[in-house]
Amino acid sequence: MTTPYDLIIRGGTIGSATGSFRADLAVKDGKVAALGLGLGRATHEIDATGKLVLPGGVDTHAHVEQVSAGGLLNADSFESATASAAFGGTTTLISFAAQHRGLDLRKVVDDYAALARRGAMIDYAFHLIVANPDRKTLEADLPALIAEGHASIKVFMTYDLIKVDDEPLLDLLLTARENGALVCVHAENHGMIAWMARRLVEKGYVAPKYHGVSHPRVSEAEAFNRLIAASELLDQPVMIFHVSTREGVEAVRAARGRGLKIFAETCPQYLFLTKDDLDKPGLEGAKWMCSPPPRETDDQEALWQGLALGDLQTISSDHAPYRFDETGKLSAGPNPNFKQIANGLPGLETRLPLLFDAMVSKERPEFAGRGLDAFVQLTATAPAQIYNLPGKGALLPGYDADIAIWDPHRKVIVTDAMMHDRTGFTPFAGRHSIGWPETVLVRGRSVIAEGVVKATPGSGRWLARTGGWAARPTGRLVPEMDPARNFGAMLL
Amino acid sequence: MTTPYDLIIRGGTIGSATGSFRADLAVKDGKVAALGLGLGRATHEIDATGKLVLPGGVDTHAHVEQVSAGGLLNADSFESATASAAFGGTTTLISFAAQHRGLDLRKVVDDYAALARRGAMIDYAFHLIVANPDRKTLEADLPALIAEGHASIKVFMTYDLIKVDDEPLLDLLLTARENGALVCVHAENHGMIAWMARRLVEKGYVAPKYHGVSHPRVSEAEAFNRLIAASELLDQPVMIFHVSTREGVEAVRAARGRGLKIFAETCPQYLFLTKDDLDKPGLEGAKWMCSPPPRETDDQEALWQGLALGDLQTISSDHAPYRFDETGKLSAGPNPNFKQIANGLPGLETRLPLLFDAMVSKERPEFAGRGLDAFVQLTATAPAQIYNLPGKGALLPGYDADIAIWDPHRKVIVTDAMMHDRTGFTPFAGRHSIGWPETVLVRGRSVIAEGVVKATPGSGRWLARTGGWAARPTGRLVPEMDPARNFGAMLL
Amino acid sequence: MTTPYDLIIRGGTIGSATGSFRADLAVKDGKVAALGLGLGRATHEIDATGKLVLPGGVDTHAHVEQVSAGGLLNADSFESATASAAFGGTTTLISFAAQHRGLDLRKVVDDYAALARRGAMIDYAFHLIVANPDRKTLEADLPALIAEGHASIKVFMTYDLIKVDDEPLLDLLLTARENGALVCVHAENHGMIAWMARRLVEKGYVAPKYHGVSHPRVSEAEAFNRLIAASELLDQPVMIFHVSTREGVEAVRAARGRGLKIFAETCPQYLFLTKDDLDKPGLEGAKWMCSPPPRETDDQEALWQGLALGDLQTISSDHAPYRFDETGKLSAGPNPNFKQIANGLPGLETRLPLLFDAMVSKERPEFAGRGLDAFVQLTATAPAQIYNLPGKGALLPGYDADIAIWDPHRKVIVTDAMMHDRTGFTPFAGRHSIGWPETVLVRGRSVIAEGVVKATPGSGRWLARTGGWAARPTGRLVPEMDPARNFGAMLL
Amino acid sequence: MTTPYDLIIRGGTIGSATGSFRADLAVKDGKVAALGLGLGRATHEIDATGKLVLPGGVDTHAHVEQVSAGGLLNADSFESATASAAFGGTTTLISFAAQHRGLDLRKVVDDYAALARRGAMIDYAFHLIVANPDRKTLEADLPALIAEGHASIKVFMTYDLIKVDDEPLLDLLLTARENGALVCVHAENHGMIAWMARRLVEKGYVAPKYHGVSHPRVSEAEAFNRLIAASELLDQPVMIFHVSTREGVEAVRAARGRGLKIFAETCPQYLFLTKDDLDKPGLEGAKWMCSPPPRETDDQEALWQGLALGDLQTISSDHAPYRFDETGKLSAGPNPNFKQIANGLPGLETRLPLLFDAMVSKERPEFAGRGLDAFVQLTATAPAQIYNLPGKGALLPGYDADIAIWDPHRKVIVTDAMMHDRTGFTPFAGRHSIGWPETVLVRGRSVIAEGVVKATPGSGRWLARTGGWAARPTGRLVPEMDPARNFGAMLL
Repeated sequence: MTTPYDLIIRGGTIGSATGSFRADLAVKDGKVAALGLGLGRATHEIDATGKLVLPGGVDTHAHVEQVSAGGLLNADSFESATASAAFGGTTTLISFAAQHRGLDLRKVVDDYAALARRGAMIDYAFHLIVANPDRKTLEADLPALIAEGHASIKVFMTYDLIKVDDEPLLDLLLTARENGALVCVHAENHGMIAWMARRLVEKGYVAPKYHGVSHPRVSEAEAFNRLIAASELLDQPVMIFHVSTREGVEAVRAARGRGLKIFAETCPQYLFLTKDDLDKPGLEGAKWMCSPPPRETDDQEALWQGLALGDLQTISSDHAPYRFDETGKLSAGPNPNFKQIANGLPGLETRLPLLFDAMVSKERPEFAGRGLDAFVQLTATAPAQIYNLPGKGALLPGYDADIAIWDPHRKVIVTDAMMHDRTGFTPFAGRHSIGWPETVLVRGRSVIAEGVVKATPGSGRWLARTGGWAARPTGRLVPEMDPARNFGAMLL
Repeated sequence: MTTPYDLIIRGGTIGSATGSFRADLAVKDGKVAALGLGLGRATHEIDATGKLVLPGGVDTHAHVEQVSAGGLLNADSFESATASAAFGGTTTLISFAAQHRGLDLRKVVDDYAALARRGAMIDYAFHLIVANPDRKTLEADLPALIAEGHASIKVFMTYDLIKVDDEPLLDLLLTARENGALVCVHAENHGMIAWMARRLVEKGYVAPKYHGVSHPRVSEAEAFNRLIAASELLDQPVMIFHVSTREGVEAVRAARGRGLKIFAETCPQYLFLTKDDLDKPGLEGAKWMCSPPPRETDDQEALWQGLALGDLQTISSDHAPYRFDETGKLSAGPNPNFKQIANGLPGLETRLPLLFDAMVSKERPEFAGRGLDAFVQLTATAPAQIYNLPGKGALLPGYDADIAIWDPHRKVIVTDAMMHDRTGFTPFAGRHSIGWPETVLVRGRSVIAEGVVKATPGSGRWLARTGGWAARPTGRLVPEMDPARNFGAMLL
Repeated sequence: MTTPYDLIIRGGTIGSATGSFRADLAVKDGKVAALGLGLGRATHEIDATGKLVLPGGVDTHAHVEQVSAGGLLNADSFESATASAAFGGTTTLISFAAQHRGLDLRKVVDDYAALARRGAMIDYAFHLIVANPDRKTLEADLPALIAEGHASIKVFMTYDLIKVDDEPLLDLLLTARENGALVCVHAENHGMIAWMARRLVEKGYVAPKYHGVSHPRVSEAEAFNRLIAASELLDQPVMIFHVSTREGVEAVRAARGRGLKIFAETCPQYLFLTKDDLDKPGLEGAKWMCSPPPRETDDQEALWQGLALGDLQTISSDHAPYRFDETGKLSAGPNPNFKQIANGLPGLETRLPLLFDAMVSKERPEFAGRGLDAFVQLTATAPAQIYNLPGKGALLPGYDADIAIWDPHRKVIVTDAMMHDRTGFTPFAGRHSIGWPETVLVRGRSVIAEGVVKATPGSGRWLARTGGWAARPTGRLVPEMDPARNFGAMLL
Repeated sequence: MTTPYDLIIRGGTIGSATGSFRADLAVKDGKVAALGLGLGRATHEIDATGKLVLPGGVDTHAHVEQVSAGGLLNADSFESATASAAFGGTTTLISFAAQHRGLDLRKVVDDYAALARRGAMIDYAFHLIVANPDRKTLEADLPALIAEGHASIKVFMTYDLIKVDDEPLLDLLLTARENGALVCVHAENHGMIAWMARRLVEKGYVAPKYHGVSHPRVSEAEAFNRLIAASELLDQPVMIFHVSTREGVEAVRAARGRGLKIFAETCPQYLFLTKDDLDKPGLEGAKWMCSPPPRETDDQEALWQGLALGDLQTISSDHAPYRFDETGKLSAGPNPNFKQIANGLPGLETRLPLLFDAMVSKERPEFAGRGLDAFVQLTATAPAQIYNLPGKGALLPGYDADIAIWDPHRKVIVTDAMMHDRTGFTPFAGRHSIGWPETVLVRGRSVIAEGVVKATPGSGRWLARTGGWAARPTGRLVPEMDPARNFGAMLL
């Protein structure tokens, strides 16, 4: 090679989803140029001896600079959120351009893209939340936006202000099918949650801990099964967000076993927290409130097992940042009941360290002997593949040089103060964790080094995506969609 | 015995759910007084030599003299319907007092009871259709009506005008739980059916046969699973009406296997017809339109198997009589699409003969060697037990002398002309059947004999019922309802 | 009626599997002659006011006057066993004519029948244990014996001296198929049990409680699945004896759900005891040793649920009486390890009272509101039907007058001393039970009355049985047996 | 880099299990030295423009130079077998050192290793077939051999001469557990197969096609379930060889879903052939005879789906080469029945091209959009990981330079004549295939190039292996193995 590389990271152990190996990694023009030993010269070098050189994390589910359906702005800007993500080893995120009822989807996306362009320091893409699936949205805006590279839709089956009922859900699945997008879903049974919450509040059970009670376990598996039935009817894949229960895992597994193309994620809050975390004096438990709520330790085991079996493919943060004060969770005034408190936890920064600690340092038994491979797979490679983020999720020649250099032995006690998002707290405070990312690069340039931010707001790039293989139908049709079995009707 | 019996039926073979036996049957004061050989004297005698003396059929799902949600009056009065039922060997029916949106349930029941008192020639009870679960209905009318002996509620999960969403469904289940009633449900996914119908009509697939296509198979199992989840949440039993698909049977079976108290029925149209029966020229197929629609022969096999295993406990007619003319199915004007044609089939009269033929005469393999026992169980004993109709469903001392005397060898070709309801047709026309009821008694008095009606309108009696064992909760609570596991909240 | 009845039992409540009713019961010539109120005259009368008049119990699994494969004679003669059974309300039993290796089946049956004729005081039939399935047994003796009325075969999949491997098991199933017999099986995985016992003893874990450990749970479900596969291969029904685990129940349920004709029983020791009952000082625990061993309370729940769902159809005693002394369980000399102690418990006498107490008096939730019906079904009606014992299991005109008159309110504390078998102990000693049979009749004649035996040894009759509906194949063939799918081979 | 690389393969597309990329690949000292663009100088170069540069295949199940239990030597030497494998793109194989009854395992391995050292041209390891699990084998030879690097055992549950019953199977699993080896199993129910074969032959159904009938489908799932129960009892993983039926796939999936560590493979014969392939005139069908036999097209679909879901992890050849003449399949003399014909097919050479054609060229729907990744995963990466073959299965820096350069567009019609093994036929003759390997390197040296063998016999190396993560127990114990739940017994 006549010209030098831009950067060589020397002496580290490079991780991948299928094995780690000692090698240098060379970067040129923002991309991985070579992997190997003795790779020649570079303008810059990083000594990674004793370190792990991993693909930067891909967090495919984070709420950033988004107004909730109820009108509450979340605590993070793109700038704070992407800094926090990068501190935690994440180099790509997907956040939400959220259409509420009555809003124009095109304008929503345009406005949201402007915010991202201004603030993001890591690369990003958007899921399009659709709460107003009218004719214009379905027939004009969505096809155009998908074609432009926004190849995923997010739907809520619950929350009064944004939920989508079964019939428009089918409209959205069909639109996704015809335009090549993946539909991601918050799947809980709305009626059950509303009924439970009403009854709890009527009877005076209003503390944050009753938030968990108000989302009964059956409301998750029920909604999964309904969603899966819709997916099957139209032969269009779906991604089920934030699985929290054993029964949810089983519903996903059963569907996949029948040949349906169902994807699923979970989040650290379901792997590390339980409903008992909400049982704090006063309103303190509100810090642990998210939807679905954390469940039981048995559910944690089921989720780990689901990840090990491939029934769940990714682990995202579902970062949903609200401050624990009157600008955030407690904005409804004094003595709120749990229905008046904003749901959501911060998690962009802790996602990877917590998982690294559990899977690699402490060797979860499901991954014993292959923890690092699985960690890379679940947090970077698989998310990049499923959401079709070309060049992301692995460190191979030609891929983006999105890299997190980890000290696998660094011991950290998580505290509120060390977090870089703007909620002011973390539900994981107090945990002892081993392994932490130290240097983080996006397309070869430092974003985090020596504990400080090196990138400038707006340096992150939007990633255009087509639907990819994950969004493709299976080709197996239910009888009612199969012309040979439905009197010739052509419905798909 | 010093005084003679009122009636002795001599020389027949008496059937029961657990064996048949040669014996005379004596009636006194409308009840079975004795079973045995050589029973002494009676005022009247019937020679049943060579005949089967069976408990009269109990048909627990029939629409009679009811106005549809769309405003269409069905073709049968209580007089015609109960005559037709009796000609088919049925001596008890449960029909529907139907509250539509905006109606007062108490008035609905009172008005409907007046119609029944005037016309019924066999005994009867009502399910209370609730489409308006407002506070008065839930808190005043239903508790009172249940206490008066109307211990079952019917809910629709589909049909625009009467469907009940998940949250009010839970309200109704709780009301049933607190007052001891059984909730019966028409369970299909409304959104899927609406979506399919819309798309079919938009694309010009409007013939009656597309009615079947518009009710996709997954819409049944999906709704079953949702309903079962609601039942589980409140630990309140449900009866799932008219199971039509293999997947539906499997959903019921899985729920029962988990210890849930789920009951289910099917109907002759799902055991003997298929979707291909709707594939007729012009509008003729409308005669075979019902909801859910007939499915495939494989579903028939699954339904028979479900009956044999006890996962389905009863077989009702779902008699829903509309004439095949402008007063009934074709009332929407010329060239209706399938959504404009009334759903429903007549079936009160053919239910028992068709089942007798299949189970007893032709020996369905599931029941080989015990066909008559199973026939009695599924069509009389089990319905009477599940709906808690005291004195009905079996011929034991002290039970009502509701009796159908069958000629087990009589061969009949079913025709439209031989039916006694007022639809003018039967979807089973042309079938060759062996075994037919000849003499039918209600409380010891002849209703049908020698091919003619012997009873007078109004001679049938209303049957007051409490919920019985079928309506009792299991006592096993989901975590969210168990105070020990939900931070002490008392929700049930 | 001109001549008087032989006996009338007046004023009681007669029980059946489908409802109980106040009526008199008249007997003539050993059979039920009539049921009704005011039935006329009789030579004898019994006042049953306030009592339950139930079909005598049918116990279809009891070891009586049988030499074990190891050469140990069990403690009971037909005289003592049938007396004990009758004291417990049982009027029919099926015991075992046991062919060991090298024995001639015909001679085994003849010898055993002579013992029964001499001693039995209630009616009886035999299962034919086959441990030597040679050509003569398969081709000559079994067909002849089945034709003579011994229509059931018992096979052991474990026990060194009598176990039958997979290939001869198929031979036996085919013989049963060709001759119309039901095959009953003790199904546990032999290799697992042998391996566990060897390892336990090698390591010095020899106390009776380790007997339970040596029969791992998986050894039951494994053997069930293997047996079910054999049954499926030849389309020949089987009865699985003494189900003890949740997984066993689930294996049976799954097989039945697939349409296979699998029957199953359990026994009181699995419904009321657990493995902890064996954890006694010294050898005392040996009194609770049986195979399979008692399991956990969770298994008890699963078994009750399996009974309620119909997946298990009968409850037998598996009476296997060995004294707790050197003539019985401890015959192997001092300090035996658990493999040297005879397995088996007495249970003929306690079976019905324990079940009555649980199901009727204390209302198990699975049967709440229908406990008495279910009790009769599971202990009398269903056993008589499945094993095709004509005239047994119900009190209907023409049926044998086998009757147990119960005081439903009598409170009893079970003690060793009150038992009438010859083991000298009962594993249920100390239990408080409500409801006990007081008067027991077989074919109209008193066997037990006023606490003493009224019958004479030898008054019991052998019951000839054909296979009946339970033993009939389903007609559904696996591909390898279906000529249309196996290149025309005719194998069945 | 100051010294040149030994070899650079330029311009190709490098494949991996998680994505393919355009890059050069440099080799130094037999290992992959670097991946990247513009990698500098090398002693040798290969132009791979337009080609795929893939990890050489890893075939973990092949019978080579092995004497069958019946005494028949298979057709291939290590020389011919490894040449054939290499022509098909495979660079590592695992064959079998086969202990028959009465043989000394150590001697078996030593003798077999000598054959391999003499002939092999690609790298290899051995599975140790154990048919004589006596004390010396279990306690001395196996622990020593495993410690030396033979970390996998093969067990047969069928075949008279080598089958291992349940109790010694548990001994072997325990030995594997204590010494860190993976147990691989040929799992079919022996008794069923013996019974079927006996009955077929007795009735004159002797043609090769009846071989398939003699292995009933249920014999596979039955044996799987038994094996899985044994694996569960000892918490020791197993690899189930050559899954052939849908029910087999389902048994594996169910076990994995319960958290058991069950691995499974299938083979091309089960993915591409059916039982109808055996239906040829005369003995011709014998060419398609293998055990288990090919099944139905529905099974093929289930197997593909199982691979896509990860329930099956690898695809091996089960190469078992016998000539179609009197030295091989027909050695039993004229007119053999199917039981007298040797089972087994050649497949080393066709494995990869057939799979490439299906998965990559023709895009099996399960892998649509990710076919090449999945092909590499299933045929190279996963086998290397599960059997812990360090440096094999992927092309990453430091890994062995085992490389197959494929022309993805080359069209080939498979013929007997083009095969390089010594059977003289291929069951896949006549298939049209797209994509074929052209140049094959092992540790950087050419084995195949320009259609001829470049390597010398004996140049292949034996690969020492420890058990790796796949062989590690899960740590979850059944109750009987858990001291806390089995009265303190320490059994593992």
